[in-house]
Amino acid sequence: MAQNHLLIVGSMAFDDLDLPTVEARDVVGGSATYASIAASHFVPVRAVAVVGGDFPQAAIDDLGKRGVDCAGIERAEGKTFRWWGRYAKDLCSRTTLDTQLNVFADFKPKLPDSFKKSPYVLLGNIHPALQLDVLSQIDKPRLVAADTMNFWIEGERKLLGQVLEKLDLLVVNDEELRQLAGIHNLKRAARAVLSMGPKRLVVKRGEFGALLFDSDGSFFVPAYPLEDEIDPTGAGDSFAGALLGVLAQSDSADRATFRRALHAASTVASFCVEGVGTKRLGGIDSGSIQKRQAELRTLVHPGD
Amino acid sequence: MAQNHLLIVGSMAFDDLDLPTVEARDVVGGSATYASIAASHFVPVRAVAVVGGDFPQAAIDDLGKRGVDCAGIERAEGKTFRWWGRYAKDLCSRTTLDTQLNVFADFKPKLPDSFKKSPYVLLGNIHPALQLDVLSQIDKPRLVAADTMNFWIEGERKLLGQVLEKLDLLVVNDEELRQLAGIHNLKRAARAVLSMGPKRLVVKRGEFGALLFDSDGSFFVPAYPLEDEIDPTGAGDSFAGALLGVLAQSDSADRATFRRALHAASTVASFCVEGVGTKRLGGIDSGSIQKRQAELRTLVHPGD
Repeated sequence: MAQNHLLIVGSMAFDDLDLPTVEARDVVGGSATYASIAASHFVPVRAVAVVGGDFPQAAIDDLGKRGVDCAGIERAEGKTFRWWGRYAKDLCSRTTLDTQLNVFADFKPKLPDSFKKSPYVLLGNIHPALQLDVLSQIDKPRLVAADTMNFWIEGERKLLGQVLEKLDLLVVNDEELRQLAGIHNLKRAARAVLSMGPKRLVVKRGEFGALLFDSDGSFFVPAYPLEDEIDPTGAGDSFAGALLGVLAQSDSADRATFRRALHAASTVASFCVEGVGTKRLGGIDSGSIQKRQAELRTLVHPGD
Repeated sequence: MAQNHLLIVGSMAFDDLDLPTVEARDVVGGSATYASIAASHFVPVRAVAVVGGDFPQAAIDDLGKRGVDCAGIERAEGKTFRWWGRYAKDLCSRTTLDTQLNVFADFKPKLPDSFKKSPYVLLGNIHPALQLDVLSQIDKPRLVAADTMNFWIEGERKLLGQVLEKLDLLVVNDEELRQLAGIHNLKRAARAVLSMGPKRLVVKRGEFGALLFDSDGSFFVPAYPLEDEIDPTGAGDSFAGALLGVLAQSDSADRATFRRALHAASTVASFCVEGVGTKRLGGIDSGSIQKRQAELRTLVHPGD
């Protein structure tokens, strides 16, 4: 059986992380990095992103060794996108200390010809105009998922609306959902957002798990309870990457597959939190994912 | 088969509730009221509490009609315990505006002889010395559960420790767990508290569900996603009452029963939130509980 490629568009970045246990500098991150590594545990990935001259080739080579096709990673003149964040002691909130868009400010994703037939697509959190442009370059994708953020919800409502109409799946956190719907109650907000176009909606709630809403009703997957929470950076992107990875691997988005994919996504995201940057996420194998995923199932299984 | 009685000790109160949608005054509440109504959907209840001369006999008679034996509700001279609270617009937090202990300040629970053989016991959040005193009045209970609060964790650590040693089950919220353990991480905190004595620990997390920790590992039950959240007052007490109610009804605390009881508890607590005070909680029947409990199971069921 031919494997289904997953196309991932997003950011690649240097993160400076003030964590409760450590201050980490120049950590290779960005949504495309986390999502690609997470998805690569399940399917071959095609990454589309931009980096500056200062980005280490070794980090790109490392993605390549994981089965990520890096032909869509453009190296532009200038510096790589950089984010500096400080986490609260309980890791439940964070403050952005500095953002330098650098080459990401002029990012115009151009898909290599070899990427244009990608059946599964994850559009990371970039300008909705760019998300639309990427979609126009892809030949009849089977499933398109996207993320977004408060900045575009506030400022690019109309374009974002056009994106939503084209989505099979929107993956956002609870605050983004509430902002998008203008409704606080999660269930009502979900219904409002589903009426804007996406066939399915996944709401990420960090340590409180995630909820799926679709025409079938709703489904809840808990976060795996961790003893060693080190760094939540990229956990949401890892969640989305693993979710799409399993859907592409299974070449299905039926009810049972989707629920299993959400369990896998929650599992992979939990590993991400256990290490600084992509350290733990990149170090796991399919055996450790399967073991923890089985524990997650037991965690919610009534047991009768 | 003889039904197992559940003994519930706690407060009966007037609550003044500043809710986002309504200001409600003189609402009949208190932990014993909520827990008794919740449990009465499953088993005959024996309530132990104190009220003042101002407490309406009709509210006590109403409990009696639900199968709550009110022989342990003492009517003392003075005024009933009164609490005034204001909820945030999103209902996620609340501020106490006023507390008047009144007759509750001198509460010395004395069990009627007919209550002394009660196989299942729920000790509401009262002074640990009183919890111990109640236990000393009961003849070999099969399962003892208790709640507590920050005030006793701070000020009555030693007595609380003696209570913990006698418990089959401690039911607290996440902040109380963290305070009791002196540890932020939930999983580590749970292990620390289990080492203090209780065989099992249930951590309530409001809209984020609840977690069970015991020698068997952990189990998670989500909150039922509500569209109409009106008043969370008493939801935690309703959760505990329904949990003990199902355990008493089943006369078992094995793994599958406990998990089913937690699903029932989450279900009953969700109804509580849908009305002011005990209005909705008291209006449901076993059919509506079963229907929603089945939906809750579906919410977490992988579906394969």
